[in-house]
Amino acid sequence: MSRLRGRFSAPTSEEMQRFSSSLKVDLEMAGEDIEGSIAHATMLGEVGVLSAGEAAELVAGLSAVAADLASGAWRPDEAEEDIHMAIEARLTAKIGELGGKLHTARSRNDQVATDLRLWLKRRLADLDLALGGLIEALLARVKNDGRVLMAGYTHLQRGQPIWLGHHLLAHTWPLVRDRQRFAGALGRLDACPLGACAMAGTAHPIDRQRTAALLGFATVSENAMDAVAARDHVQEVAAACAICMTHLSRMAEELVIWSSAEVAFVQLGETYATGSSIMPQKRNPDAAELVRGKAGRVYGDLQALLTMVKAQPLAYNRDLQEDREALFDAVHTTLACLRISTGMWSTLEIDSDRFVGEMVGDFSLATELADLMAAKGVPFRQAHETVGEIVRWCEEEGGNLSLLTAESAARFGLEITAEELADCLDPEAAAQRRTSHGGTAWSEIQRQVELLSSSD
Amino acid sequence: MSRLRGRFSAPTSEEMQRFSSSLKVDLEMAGEDIEGSIAHATMLGEVGVLSAGEAAELVAGLSAVAADLASGAWRPDEAEEDIHMAIEARLTAKIGELGGKLHTARSRNDQVATDLRLWLKRRLADLDLALGGLIEALLARVKNDGRVLMAGYTHLQRGQPIWLGHHLLAHTWPLVRDRQRFAGALGRLDACPLGACAMAGTAHPIDRQRTAALLGFATVSENAMDAVAARDHVQEVAAACAICMTHLSRMAEELVIWSSAEVAFVQLGETYATGSSIMPQKRNPDAAELVRGKAGRVYGDLQALLTMVKAQPLAYNRDLQEDREALFDAVHTTLACLRISTGMWSTLEIDSDRFVGEMVGDFSLATELADLMAAKGVPFRQAHETVGEIVRWCEEEGGNLSLLTAESAARFGLEITAEELADCLDPEAAAQRRTSHGGTAWSEIQRQVELLSSSD
Amino acid sequence: MSRLRGRFSAPTSEEMQRFSSSLKVDLEMAGEDIEGSIAHATMLGEVGVLSAGEAAELVAGLSAVAADLASGAWRPDEAEEDIHMAIEARLTAKIGELGGKLHTARSRNDQVATDLRLWLKRRLADLDLALGGLIEALLARVKNDGRVLMAGYTHLQRGQPIWLGHHLLAHTWPLVRDRQRFAGALGRLDACPLGACAMAGTAHPIDRQRTAALLGFATVSENAMDAVAARDHVQEVAAACAICMTHLSRMAEELVIWSSAEVAFVQLGETYATGSSIMPQKRNPDAAELVRGKAGRVYGDLQALLTMVKAQPLAYNRDLQEDREALFDAVHTTLACLRISTGMWSTLEIDSDRFVGEMVGDFSLATELADLMAAKGVPFRQAHETVGEIVRWCEEEGGNLSLLTAESAARFGLEITAEELADCLDPEAAAQRRTSHGGTAWSEIQRQVELLSSSD
Amino acid sequence: MSRLRGRFSAPTSEEMQRFSSSLKVDLEMAGEDIEGSIAHATMLGEVGVLSAGEAAELVAGLSAVAADLASGAWRPDEAEEDIHMAIEARLTAKIGELGGKLHTARSRNDQVATDLRLWLKRRLADLDLALGGLIEALLARVKNDGRVLMAGYTHLQRGQPIWLGHHLLAHTWPLVRDRQRFAGALGRLDACPLGACAMAGTAHPIDRQRTAALLGFATVSENAMDAVAARDHVQEVAAACAICMTHLSRMAEELVIWSSAEVAFVQLGETYATGSSIMPQKRNPDAAELVRGKAGRVYGDLQALLTMVKAQPLAYNRDLQEDREALFDAVHTTLACLRISTGMWSTLEIDSDRFVGEMVGDFSLATELADLMAAKGVPFRQAHETVGEIVRWCEEEGGNLSLLTAESAARFGLEITAEELADCLDPEAAAQRRTSHGGTAWSEIQRQVELLSSSD
Repeated sequence: MSRLRGRFSAPTSEEMQRFSSSLKVDLEMAGEDIEGSIAHATMLGEVGVLSAGEAAELVAGLSAVAADLASGAWRPDEAEEDIHMAIEARLTAKIGELGGKLHTARSRNDQVATDLRLWLKRRLADLDLALGGLIEALLARVKNDGRVLMAGYTHLQRGQPIWLGHHLLAHTWPLVRDRQRFAGALGRLDACPLGACAMAGTAHPIDRQRTAALLGFATVSENAMDAVAARDHVQEVAAACAICMTHLSRMAEELVIWSSAEVAFVQLGETYATGSSIMPQKRNPDAAELVRGKAGRVYGDLQALLTMVKAQPLAYNRDLQEDREALFDAVHTTLACLRISTGMWSTLEIDSDRFVGEMVGDFSLATELADLMAAKGVPFRQAHETVGEIVRWCEEEGGNLSLLTAESAARFGLEITAEELADCLDPEAAAQRRTSHGGTAWSEIQRQVELLSSSD
Repeated sequence: MSRLRGRFSAPTSEEMQRFSSSLKVDLEMAGEDIEGSIAHATMLGEVGVLSAGEAAELVAGLSAVAADLASGAWRPDEAEEDIHMAIEARLTAKIGELGGKLHTARSRNDQVATDLRLWLKRRLADLDLALGGLIEALLARVKNDGRVLMAGYTHLQRGQPIWLGHHLLAHTWPLVRDRQRFAGALGRLDACPLGACAMAGTAHPIDRQRTAALLGFATVSENAMDAVAARDHVQEVAAACAICMTHLSRMAEELVIWSSAEVAFVQLGETYATGSSIMPQKRNPDAAELVRGKAGRVYGDLQALLTMVKAQPLAYNRDLQEDREALFDAVHTTLACLRISTGMWSTLEIDSDRFVGEMVGDFSLATELADLMAAKGVPFRQAHETVGEIVRWCEEEGGNLSLLTAESAARFGLEITAEELADCLDPEAAAQRRTSHGGTAWSEIQRQVELLSSSD
Repeated sequence: MSRLRGRFSAPTSEEMQRFSSSLKVDLEMAGEDIEGSIAHATMLGEVGVLSAGEAAELVAGLSAVAADLASGAWRPDEAEEDIHMAIEARLTAKIGELGGKLHTARSRNDQVATDLRLWLKRRLADLDLALGGLIEALLARVKNDGRVLMAGYTHLQRGQPIWLGHHLLAHTWPLVRDRQRFAGALGRLDACPLGACAMAGTAHPIDRQRTAALLGFATVSENAMDAVAARDHVQEVAAACAICMTHLSRMAEELVIWSSAEVAFVQLGETYATGSSIMPQKRNPDAAELVRGKAGRVYGDLQALLTMVKAQPLAYNRDLQEDREALFDAVHTTLACLRISTGMWSTLEIDSDRFVGEMVGDFSLATELADLMAAKGVPFRQAHETVGEIVRWCEEEGGNLSLLTAESAARFGLEITAEELADCLDPEAAAQRRTSHGGTAWSEIQRQVELLSSSD
Repeated sequence: MSRLRGRFSAPTSEEMQRFSSSLKVDLEMAGEDIEGSIAHATMLGEVGVLSAGEAAELVAGLSAVAADLASGAWRPDEAEEDIHMAIEARLTAKIGELGGKLHTARSRNDQVATDLRLWLKRRLADLDLALGGLIEALLARVKNDGRVLMAGYTHLQRGQPIWLGHHLLAHTWPLVRDRQRFAGALGRLDACPLGACAMAGTAHPIDRQRTAALLGFATVSENAMDAVAARDHVQEVAAACAICMTHLSRMAEELVIWSSAEVAFVQLGETYATGSSIMPQKRNPDAAELVRGKAGRVYGDLQALLTMVKAQPLAYNRDLQEDREALFDAVHTTLACLRISTGMWSTLEIDSDRFVGEMVGDFSLATELADLMAAKGVPFRQAHETVGEIVRWCEEEGGNLSLLTAESAARFGLEITAEELADCLDPEAAAQRRTSHGGTAWSEIQRQVELLSSSD
């Protein structure tokens, strides 16, 4: 066990060790930690802080540690304070006292900041890929099943007839913005903190740009204290995850509702549904429910990350150690939910006949009548009132708008031919009529699909 | 692997299995799950749903599974869907097809609800104990160091001289209320859900009171659907944890401030401080910082638990599976922070001379002057204004209230003898003077200590 | 404008005044503030800190201010720093310099703490009443419509046939626990802080028990610093509101789903539904959606209250001023949602025939078959598997369990008479059969109604 | 009162009206609503849906309503359902039944979405300006007081000597990223939803690009359902506010600590400090405390916005009405805190001599010794251990590093000349030595100031 206790007379307690150790969580970025050390040692050798031989020996030793870790030949001792100390201890065991020179011109503060940014860069690439996959799955759905007629809902009440493709695209665009948000976060965090040391930089003649380049960072952080104290990039990624999870939860909610016995518009692929321990008939939309539930978890992670940094004086404080667990959870959860959602939406069975008959004369065509009156010069507000009365009359008669004839319409002051009426009450015609930019007409759906396919 | 897939034609995917499995988390309540099953089987045997022999065989089998689990001879297969199925599979492997009878007159819904309540009952006992320990540690501190003079702060500005004991008791009372909150939560959740089945109860002639008694529950839940769908007890415990963590974070913040070089009122025990990887002199109050930071995490857990249940239709939905991870984290974090706080406050070194000299004539005695004027009949508001002007004059003179003499006081319209003035500006006398109920006078501190000691 | 700026040479800026003023929010507890002052003055007169005449004059003056406020003759000047200073200024304008004596032996810290607790005591009474009203409305529903057959859902999938009363009671019990939580909070906050002064008590010979009694508090707070610094009671009430809102959001979600065209189990009273500006037929469940949406707002209030107090050193800090806005919002929102929910559930029209025909032979009766097999000695797990296969067969045949005959059952190894089968597949019989404690059988519903009615 | 109740037989209740009305909140965007209507009417006239005369009359009428609103001649009736209906009613009162034609080819769904985006565009400009102001104030501080020596802290313990300018820049860079975040959000929301109607677009031959151009939007939203259902832009702005508030809270915390009696590094300008009602000497850092406390509130707003949209099926649901109150609060709070922070940091008095003497030989120079040893070839880890022992020895001797001489250093194995030692223990030299990119050396501070000044 190697701990930094030079000025202390007593060792720490086991309870405190357990309480303060971040090793278990940080194992996830052990690879990044070693990469950072290799780049650091290489740079120290190049600028002459270490001799070329020392640098080479350190790099070789670190590579050996990395290999041991990858092969499982070595697992960091849980008694170590953190991953950095564990790796340094292993290195020193391998190459002797020279290992102690690795920590020249750096601190754990800039080291952990570097590890975390490296980790984030890779996960943001994963998130981008996963979002791309889900967008693609939705576009494939639109191409294959987009021209299925359905009720467009507001307030979970049938509003107007639409094509399924229109609805699916309404789920797709937010995901495009999610991708942009992650890209924006990436741009802001792509700066290497290594060399910031504790918070004040160093007197050693280091070359931070070189370290950054070796690690693939776009640039270096401009202020050493900001480099170790900032966590806004962590919060920003968590916030983007939380917003993305909101979108996935909305999609999941619809799968739950659409697969209920009463709506029965879709059937989840068997992989994503599960049975009941007591009710043999059940086909529960578990995957969708879990995605929905996990949104809350990511919101909680975000709240934890905000609260933890709130009112912290500069520069590093130990509270910041807590950032990884919340961030890792937010990112892994979002990734898993993106992948499961992709699977769910790809394997879904859609009942394309579900609404076809039922929507003829459905009240969701009422806007058609009002629009027709407005087109004939009646102020829309008055048309809206009139059609409201017609709806009430139909309800009282126990039917829907199919009851309406040119004659009965006239009684409400609506002059209309039988032909106009039939066209009005045809749900497919109603959907096709909405050709305004972004409307539900099939041409508009095709336009969006092209736009989305090319932008990728 | 045993999964409930009778109505399905295809197995689930590995990805979905990982995504939906709660086994890893639920291992924590494996013991409770087996206890619940033993009680259930016992009751089924007593009421005749199972024969006495069947019940005895099930109980023996379950006890053997429990023993295997405890000894480590058996670890549930990660491929199992959840802990309930894993245990039933193990049981069936041990005693054969009779194992399949265990699930008569119950569902996983009421089973998991029971496990969770049993687990909570035990953790609430742990929390009560840990809170009691911290309260005791604080009371011991009051007894030993309570009569150390210090500045009482508001707005982190020195307000009035107080005894340390007064301050410590201000941290103690909220913990007493935390205990009450946990006790209240316990009272509300101490009802056994077992036998509620999926949500509608059962036609089998079960005796739910008997099962409850076997498991040590105070009563049974009154409505089968509420029994499986409710999670308010989980939220309530998490909320009580969040409030408790707020208290611990306030105590921790003070340790961080008090142990800074500028205040230097306390020194953390070495166990609870750690060094720096770069700055050899550092004695960082890491334990206190971690406690402070972990408050955010528990707030996040609470937010997750609220959001997850929000707008969920009855009865059970799979989102609810997510409740354990957040709850377990909130409870374990709070427990650990209580214990670490107890250690920190027990091992703290207090610099009892820190404020003694510095506070003579300190501006924190200004209220004394104003109170004296008020006692002499000057309206307090006017006295307050006058003393404000005196403070300004002293500041401009570059000193503190020690500059004031009976003569200079008179110039501000404050008629006062040199003796009165000396008494006014003596910080210890000022503290002792505040004998109102709950005031900082030593007698009031003693009264509270007795009250708190006896109530325990 | 009266501000406490004796030691300052410059006035504050208008921007800062706006930023820091709490007057607008605190107007809500202006009445409580005056009541507190009247009690304080009365006590000061009784113990002799003020003369009887002074006390009487103060009380009369305060009563006059209260009357002016009530009649609207006086509105506090927005330029005042807070409600306490505004009232004191008004008082001094009325009775002269004696007004300045009112602030003897108290501080704004204990004053605002007292106002807030008085306010909370009254709102907790309102919440109790509102909860009682909603519980009563639900019980009335159970009595009138409880014996309507419906599908009991899990995962929004039909699970087993139940009576509506069973479902409504599952919403009622959590509200009973909400009431208990508010009562617990009340018990913990019913202690008067007045006389704690800034944080250290006072040297004046005050009688805090007397002040408490005059204000109707059960007791006094035991530690002066705790009295002004604690906000756990505010957080606890907000947490209880958040949990209660979770319950209301679940009820609201069901109204939204149940009133959709596809489920059509209920129709919201017209008062609680609204129209669309464009779709004349819409009858949107707006009240239910708003209740659901407002849950998020109360969760946000709770997070604000937790975060705001996190890591605050003792005693009072100005951050605490922010507590009122979040608390008031949480309490008023919960109260409004309770009342609107009461209205919605009272005026709801239920379609009692909705499920009657549709559920004969419905797959939600599958558990009946499995239970029957179990009763015949087949291990439940095996029965569950068998019935799962039967369900699949029925689905493949394009029907439901009505397709099953004694003969076809036998092919799956299920020995059953036609009579047994008919009984199994009768949804009403299935509901009535579940007579276990808390089950859906009508007798169990009646038992709960009596229990809940008597406990009120 | 104009409500859309054509299909309803009964009016709504006053309680429900109060509960569901958004008018009070939406007043804030009344101007944007009228602008949107003017653009819509203009476009309808241009494309021929309305005649040129009708369009002109509508525009004139709307302009008159806007003027009435601005002058206060008209206040919307609180009994109106929302701001849109109130304005339309006022318009119809002015120009008669033609007012009813305004709602052709639009819905309240796209109308409110447009209002909110217009409002956001303006507030994002305000936020950018306010952030720019604070950055400028900090840079001015750096230029004027940047070369004040201070302790650089980690864990609130003195770490290494730095220039104040280094610290201030560490607060500046996060604000630069905040600006970028707001700019990113603006880019994503700068698309006009008008013409999306309820969710499906319209059959009227509208020109959405024209409306967008009239309103100054960069583009139009591509999918009508996404246009009315999306709220990720609202969440994104709130998240950026929450992150920004985290930064302001960190700065505020430091002001609170730095202005305490024990640190006394700064004194807040009188405008931003306030007095106590009981302690005449107090100069409380209220403005800083309020900024700190308000962070919690904005976190709460963000959580409310996330939770409210979670699991909402498409498209519009009434829950979304709640978005404004939380968003407006988050934005206004952040704006106010940015402005107050600018004032606080501009008017701060800094005690430039505070640390000068005290830091000579301070333990914060320990890293210098270790770095020196490392430069002499001792592995840093060993140097770190050695200096830790020296620190302990100095502490035991009751002093600081000034006790160290070349002779005593040698006893610890540290070979050092008296001159090297003096240089090591000179805090200013230590600060100047750290010339690595982003280090605390004055040249690096100047580099950053130039970078930040030019980028603006």
